Amino acid sequence: MIRQLAIIGVGLIGGSLARALRDADAVEEIVGYGRRVDHLQEAVDLGVIDRAAVSVADAVHGADMIVVAVPVGNVSTVLEDIADHAGPDAIVTDVGSVKGSVIDAARQALGDSFNRFVPGHPIAGTEHSGVAASFAELFQGHRVVLTPEQETDESAVDKVWAMWRHTGADVMVMDARTHDAVLAACSHVPHVLAFTLVDTLVRQDNHKAVFDLAAGGFRDFSRIAGSDPVMWRDICLHNADAVTEVLRLFRGDLDAVIDAIEIRDGDFLAKTFQRARQDRKSVV
Amino acid sequence: MIRQLAIIGVGLIGGSLARALRDADAVEEIVGYGRRVDHLQEAVDLGVIDRAAVSVADAVHGADMIVVAVPVGNVSTVLEDIADHAGPDAIVTDVGSVKGSVIDAARQALGDSFNRFVPGHPIAGTEHSGVAASFAELFQGHRVVLTPEQETDESAVDKVWAMWRHTGADVMVMDARTHDAVLAACSHVPHVLAFTLVDTLVRQDNHKAVFDLAAGGFRDFSRIAGSDPVMWRDICLHNADAVTEVLRLFRGDLDAVIDAIEIRDGDFLAKTFQRARQDRKSVV
Repeated sequence: MIRQLAIIGVGLIGGSLARALRDADAVEEIVGYGRRVDHLQEAVDLGVIDRAAVSVADAVHGADMIVVAVPVGNVSTVLEDIADHAGPDAIVTDVGSVKGSVIDAARQALGDSFNRFVPGHPIAGTEHSGVAASFAELFQGHRVVLTPEQETDESAVDKVWAMWRHTGADVMVMDARTHDAVLAACSHVPHVLAFTLVDTLVRQDNHKAVFDLAAGGFRDFSRIAGSDPVMWRDICLHNADAVTEVLRLFRGDLDAVIDAIEIRDGDFLAKTFQRARQDRKSVV
Repeated sequence: MIRQLAIIGVGLIGGSLARALRDADAVEEIVGYGRRVDHLQEAVDLGVIDRAAVSVADAVHGADMIVVAVPVGNVSTVLEDIADHAGPDAIVTDVGSVKGSVIDAARQALGDSFNRFVPGHPIAGTEHSGVAASFAELFQGHRVVLTPEQETDESAVDKVWAMWRHTGADVMVMDARTHDAVLAACSHVPHVLAFTLVDTLVRQDNHKAVFDLAAGGFRDFSRIAGSDPVMWRDICLHNADAVTEVLRLFRGDLDAVIDAIEIRDGDFLAKTFQRARQDRKSVV
């Protein structure tokens, strides 16, 4: 049981975690902090948090579990505030989609307390954002990846693991480098491609007809282009090496496909498409 | 009321059309033909068609409405068979995702009867194929685009229009060139990107972890990579100019995004992603 949970950033993820832990009766008190007072008030009104704090210092005061659920670009600043005000036994964790850069920031900000920082990433979300979009079932059946470092306290990992288990998530441990490479491939790059394609299309003269006739495939494909642009900018910047590596591989393959269409090389296209379908089926 | 409907190619689209017209009581007899005898037998067993024909000639004999629902790459051959055996008043239509090349093929194959050919494209489908995946509601609320040429008989257009209305589809007329450009953007290119990305990823060492951790965004994005490879090869080849034009625009934009990530140009990324989200919202 968590006695006092501090959630820094009460949006879709932070809010859903609060709701899930409340539903599971796994927490006594939830204190929330965020930069937008109106959003915090909304979180109180919705019953997602018990109390709105006036600062990070206020939020973490007396907390035994601190969850940082702000965009990856803001994690560093928040961790510095936490370092100055968290109790000596408080456990700190985050929910960022990138782990390498968050770990670097945490090591620097937390100093000697770095061993009580458990890097985490719940692989769940929708294209909506904000506490109003949060719901207790968001993590059910989804993966939560923890990427502890060598220094990370084992009992801290156990407690964060237990917290996520209460949400119905499937928790696993992975090293941060692998996490970042894998997420670049299965999440970050698809988002970049969806954003880019939609942007390419909306700048064309015929874009109203294009969206009007858009079939299901396009709706699915472009749904993720409705995601929060700032969050995804930060993810791209913080996982830049892994993301550009996959993007460069993809661009090379795309060039080959464009060439094949131009010279009407049907065999190449059929083989590529067939391999994609076959291998996708075997693993999805 | 259609007296005798001939469906050449009783797959997802042909089968769903047969089911929908039967449910709407809009057809007396449905004769089907396809190259695979076992698939045709399945269509009979499922009650999708009344009778399996042994050839295109047999299928179109006595038909007042002939629907060509084979992959775009096979339309030309089928139309030549139809030209030799269809009755003088029979109306011929198709369901191909590309209209320019189908019209060229029809003009050549049908000769003087070209005026009774109504090019059509129901914008509906799933990533599944085959008659077993067909269902009567597939077209409900979806667009069907007809792209008649100047020579096309108006009463033939009216009859094909009426047929599709019976399926619950929303029928519209557009010129073939516009159709092909718009579909390249909203359907063909997204499929090419999905196939290519999945193919890029499955050739990486970490692909099992990638698919294992794949979040909802990737599943949506890659769902269309489960589509029929031969059908999509044909679409790429038959709409090559429009598809490569959009792909080249996209590649240019993707290069700019990759560059922006490499030099950590967050403003460029945020602007691009924001524009995509905003404009997508305004039109989808």
